[in-house]
Amino acid sequence: MGLSCRKKTTSTASQVAPASQKTYSATKPARIAILGASGYTGEECVRLLAQHPAFNVTVLTGESQAGKAFSDVFPHLVTATDVPNLIKVGDVDWDNVDAAFCCLPHATTQEILASLPTHIRVVDLSADFRLRDVSTYAEWYGGEHKAPELQKEAVYGLTEVYRNDIRSARLVANPGCYPTSVQLPLYPLLEAGLILTDDIIVDSKSGVSGAGRSAKQAFLYTEVAEGINSYGVSKHRHMPEIEQGLSDAAGSEVRISFTPHLMPMSRGMQSTCYVKMANNVTIDDLRQHLVNRYKDETFVHVLPEGQIPHTRHVRGSNYNLIAVFADRIPGRAIVISVIDNLVKGASGQAIQNLNVMLGVPEETGLMQQALFP
Amino acid sequence: MGLSCRKKTTSTASQVAPASQKTYSATKPARIAILGASGYTGEECVRLLAQHPAFNVTVLTGESQAGKAFSDVFPHLVTATDVPNLIKVGDVDWDNVDAAFCCLPHATTQEILASLPTHIRVVDLSADFRLRDVSTYAEWYGGEHKAPELQKEAVYGLTEVYRNDIRSARLVANPGCYPTSVQLPLYPLLEAGLILTDDIIVDSKSGVSGAGRSAKQAFLYTEVAEGINSYGVSKHRHMPEIEQGLSDAAGSEVRISFTPHLMPMSRGMQSTCYVKMANNVTIDDLRQHLVNRYKDETFVHVLPEGQIPHTRHVRGSNYNLIAVFADRIPGRAIVISVIDNLVKGASGQAIQNLNVMLGVPEETGLMQQALFP
Amino acid sequence: MGLSCRKKTTSTASQVAPASQKTYSATKPARIAILGASGYTGEECVRLLAQHPAFNVTVLTGESQAGKAFSDVFPHLVTATDVPNLIKVGDVDWDNVDAAFCCLPHATTQEILASLPTHIRVVDLSADFRLRDVSTYAEWYGGEHKAPELQKEAVYGLTEVYRNDIRSARLVANPGCYPTSVQLPLYPLLEAGLILTDDIIVDSKSGVSGAGRSAKQAFLYTEVAEGINSYGVSKHRHMPEIEQGLSDAAGSEVRISFTPHLMPMSRGMQSTCYVKMANNVTIDDLRQHLVNRYKDETFVHVLPEGQIPHTRHVRGSNYNLIAVFADRIPGRAIVISVIDNLVKGASGQAIQNLNVMLGVPEETGLMQQALFP
Amino acid sequence: MGLSCRKKTTSTASQVAPASQKTYSATKPARIAILGASGYTGEECVRLLAQHPAFNVTVLTGESQAGKAFSDVFPHLVTATDVPNLIKVGDVDWDNVDAAFCCLPHATTQEILASLPTHIRVVDLSADFRLRDVSTYAEWYGGEHKAPELQKEAVYGLTEVYRNDIRSARLVANPGCYPTSVQLPLYPLLEAGLILTDDIIVDSKSGVSGAGRSAKQAFLYTEVAEGINSYGVSKHRHMPEIEQGLSDAAGSEVRISFTPHLMPMSRGMQSTCYVKMANNVTIDDLRQHLVNRYKDETFVHVLPEGQIPHTRHVRGSNYNLIAVFADRIPGRAIVISVIDNLVKGASGQAIQNLNVMLGVPEETGLMQQALFP
Repeated sequence: MGLSCRKKTTSTASQVAPASQKTYSATKPARIAILGASGYTGEECVRLLAQHPAFNVTVLTGESQAGKAFSDVFPHLVTATDVPNLIKVGDVDWDNVDAAFCCLPHATTQEILASLPTHIRVVDLSADFRLRDVSTYAEWYGGEHKAPELQKEAVYGLTEVYRNDIRSARLVANPGCYPTSVQLPLYPLLEAGLILTDDIIVDSKSGVSGAGRSAKQAFLYTEVAEGINSYGVSKHRHMPEIEQGLSDAAGSEVRISFTPHLMPMSRGMQSTCYVKMANNVTIDDLRQHLVNRYKDETFVHVLPEGQIPHTRHVRGSNYNLIAVFADRIPGRAIVISVIDNLVKGASGQAIQNLNVMLGVPEETGLMQQALFP
Repeated sequence: MGLSCRKKTTSTASQVAPASQKTYSATKPARIAILGASGYTGEECVRLLAQHPAFNVTVLTGESQAGKAFSDVFPHLVTATDVPNLIKVGDVDWDNVDAAFCCLPHATTQEILASLPTHIRVVDLSADFRLRDVSTYAEWYGGEHKAPELQKEAVYGLTEVYRNDIRSARLVANPGCYPTSVQLPLYPLLEAGLILTDDIIVDSKSGVSGAGRSAKQAFLYTEVAEGINSYGVSKHRHMPEIEQGLSDAAGSEVRISFTPHLMPMSRGMQSTCYVKMANNVTIDDLRQHLVNRYKDETFVHVLPEGQIPHTRHVRGSNYNLIAVFADRIPGRAIVISVIDNLVKGASGQAIQNLNVMLGVPEETGLMQQALFP
Repeated sequence: MGLSCRKKTTSTASQVAPASQKTYSATKPARIAILGASGYTGEECVRLLAQHPAFNVTVLTGESQAGKAFSDVFPHLVTATDVPNLIKVGDVDWDNVDAAFCCLPHATTQEILASLPTHIRVVDLSADFRLRDVSTYAEWYGGEHKAPELQKEAVYGLTEVYRNDIRSARLVANPGCYPTSVQLPLYPLLEAGLILTDDIIVDSKSGVSGAGRSAKQAFLYTEVAEGINSYGVSKHRHMPEIEQGLSDAAGSEVRISFTPHLMPMSRGMQSTCYVKMANNVTIDDLRQHLVNRYKDETFVHVLPEGQIPHTRHVRGSNYNLIAVFADRIPGRAIVISVIDNLVKGASGQAIQNLNVMLGVPEETGLMQQALFP
Repeated sequence: MGLSCRKKTTSTASQVAPASQKTYSATKPARIAILGASGYTGEECVRLLAQHPAFNVTVLTGESQAGKAFSDVFPHLVTATDVPNLIKVGDVDWDNVDAAFCCLPHATTQEILASLPTHIRVVDLSADFRLRDVSTYAEWYGGEHKAPELQKEAVYGLTEVYRNDIRSARLVANPGCYPTSVQLPLYPLLEAGLILTDDIIVDSKSGVSGAGRSAKQAFLYTEVAEGINSYGVSKHRHMPEIEQGLSDAAGSEVRISFTPHLMPMSRGMQSTCYVKMANNVTIDDLRQHLVNRYKDETFVHVLPEGQIPHTRHVRGSNYNLIAVFADRIPGRAIVISVIDNLVKGASGQAIQNLNVMLGVPEETGLMQQALFP
């Protein structure tokens, strides 16, 4: 055996399949469909699943590219084989599919998922099922929710927090990249009452791949390279999703300040969180609580005092690195969290969730270390 | 005449030379020395002065590179001529120098400047004379100040705030890049009591050129590209400089939260400032106050509601763009400020200051628009 | 005066206006229209002209953006003033225009230029009038030429080669970026018979801005960063333009190998040219011939033996740097040429040409040194 | 099983261990030492071996960093476990090591490898044993070879060409990145006499990681970003290595033109090769010969007509993509080859070689697809 990257004992529970469920393995792999495979998150699922022994990609859909070889759309995958051609979603033979990753654009997902046969387990990477309150959805996404019944069934897929519910879920709403980067460090601190709910300020920085692969002038190389900017100031759509999670953690409504920034890099995300500690709480208390909370988690790693995480430390990997620092203003702390927005912030966490749903060891297919430099 | 970039009437005062002083012009240019010219700020002075009609670079010093042509050190300037060779600072003939830009490293500057003939007007780009309190200097820079008398004489060179004092100064301490980006938006707001002094949180992002040209592993292309990270968390040396200025503005001691981030770009700096408004103050009040404060300033521009500045909008130029936004948390505001760290954050502001000191129109040599893309 | 960048005496001829022509100056500036100003070359004209004392931009056209402020389209120019709003080309009052830069897309230019009043001097940055042979145009650009009469009148605007014809031209066809980078070093060598016409192999590398500002997936940041690729192998449209020029120089038909490569950088272009020397010709002969040929030219600089030009040495400037090296294969030489594709490869050379056409000193507005780092 | 990436049947020979040799597997892994692990190629071995089931990294050496945790040197590997601390090479217990990757700098390797116990199988990533002729070594590397006897034993590790010799080798000299990218496409074409030996011109482009991790001004982010340049024109050290291989293929001495270029990207390498076809040979002949030659090879892939490989299509992977194009000059062809310089150009090919040497399936640990975007 090479280097073991499984430094932590994952809770055994995660390896027990629900009673009613088939067991998938290298000899009997689950048949996986990826809907909307022509975008970056779809492609990232394909890349990661190329090394997954228990999942077999048998269906790829893409409406405008149907009929093409996948490597016509993503030429770097000319070296992968057994990748099916793209077809239209209406042409999928669902009898021969066990589970699906849904990588369709926001708002197009609801009706398609509502129409799927119920034996299909789904991880949805769009935002369509993340917000429990459909009126909040309507407010931020500009339209009535078209599958409110299905919404009630959806489980929010922040794996390390909602693992038990995910295990038996039929539909998991995979978290957004920003919400993942913010909730993993702050959820436990709010839940334990170690930080206050007011004046939580989150300054986030994201790579460009978060904007997707559609041709837009704002994301041309010439418009992005060698410069940075804030965007969606005070009104980014991930805001209600973050607040929903943090409010759950705190047990009371939390309203945060959240400002995303576009970085000249393809992948990577950092959230720098400025928080107030509760009375008599110290920086060490925060760090130690996070260490304890995540000590059995493979993909969340809390750094020792003084170490600063870089987004390049998680490029291409499913890890989340967290660090806690004293602020110069007494009583305040700075919590830094980095992920790869396409992996732990999207397709990696989606696979992690499906592993949990299908009773496969949670780390399967996800143990790649960061690509550096 | 081409496009006029002087959209604002600069106060006439700035164009009147002090009584005792010579008048410099294209036909009788000031003779300029640049000390420590082999770093990026020295080179940037040379680049900008190549188009300055009233200043003539006659001396360049560089201890380890003395004897070389400047284009041996900066080959892109092979196309500039009349650039003197590098000499040692001990070999400068000060009788033929009118003014100097001092681009030496921190801590090496004090003794050299203390030894200069008193007819030399100096803009010092190091940190050595920025902090009025020499004990604060000793605390943050790790050594006793070696020219405390000269420190008393130094004027802090944030041009738009201290212009009157700069006009007659012999030694101007040019502000740091982070302090420039933070003070220009926040100084007027604190001075007018529109924002509170507590809980000022500044998340800053800088290009790599701020780290200088010395060979260090951490700033290799391979270590910087395609990723970001915080650094100097809670202990960056620009912190006391920012606090000194903001405390002056507020009339009481201000302690801020300040976290710098390293960006994969050569130039550019953004400070995203999270502040609390005073009672009954609105976002429009903040914006309008800044608009009024800077309406006659050429190099500070406050954007209208909704427009977001990019660092690439000021690349290579001496401008500072500022924008004000409502925060989602009631009572808070987000103030965004962008500069080019090597121009308004260093060499450009230094030239602006020397223009003021020598009675030359303040914009001279500084009207280049941003290089985009 | 600051640093003099005019290291070379420009031939006096270039400063003499044609007899029939008005004299333009800072007090009586030429009124300039920029057609198609919403792309990068249009914008680059605006940036450079912002510092041109004898040209005044009075008209900007952009069909789809008509009615907007120019800074709505290029926000970094919010700091420039007296920039006119965009209008439709049909709304231009040509009586109040002296000259025009035409930055319209290929194939749209012919009819517009054919319809202009004859008092307008035009520099056309499109490819429409570069090829003398309209059948070659039709072959490479996919359509009949719509203004063949005007084509006969057009002068090819490689300034250093065709200056005399440019001076009296009404319409100058500004060269493409690749053709500029290749012809400046190779034209004189072929003309003097120092290199052979066969087996000329040109491997060129270009920044992304050459692809323009239209939203295309292939030029997204995520598709371009951190990787390179050849494109248009054996069939790039600049090939006939290069061959036309080199054939003129050689006095016989030249057919070259030309392969362009897309680089992850916004600006800059290098052509690495692999050539065979004529009998008994040495590397020094090549270099010395180029040195002599360009010794009075401000914008073409031949480096001494052993120095290697970088594209970053000319970023934002109008310079062309050339270097000559021995090849390891006996009898062969390597000639390297770098320019900024948007300046000497487009808008800078266009201004240089209009300066010549209007009798203004050729360097006017173009003496900015490279922006480095 | 997920996607099968083994699209080709690897020759069964490669899976047969030499008779005299142990068999390694997941249950009985080989114990691997990495000498000089603190550079990028050492680190890349660690990254790739983290997923190798039959190799276990038990020793890491680094003279100046001895005593440190590996994640102190490469913080992104804080998420990998069972990674040994760095020790000095003199402290290695060779009795417990089966094989070594030697990632030491050129010229330091010879004496260390000559002193190793003979049971250790070694893949040397330095240049020290690549050149058969020690006088050529002395000429290009500036010093006498210190282990000429060992040199005679070394096998050149271009896996797809020398696999049979590699299988039984004790010391494999892993090819340089440029030589790998050039020889894989050109070796078969020369061997078959399809292209001529004269006038082979190779224009190569490399990412910055090829320069290593040592702090040098020339490789700072600010000196590399947003620009390109040739380097080592006519005198790069990889030239004799390429010529040695191509001469072997042709059966006569080959002298090439080779010019490397530094690209603003961390990883990736393209060689654009300009060649002359033999009489009556066509482009299709070239392509078809390469297709046939590599049809059973997993890591070399020849693209169909018209497809252009990008370096980003192989980022992080062990693949080599090759494409063949007609040149505009009759009788000439353009052959494009891309690899990741740190994987197929260094550590990936090294692992491929050790797999062959130790009788492990050749693709083990190397089936990661490219990371895109």
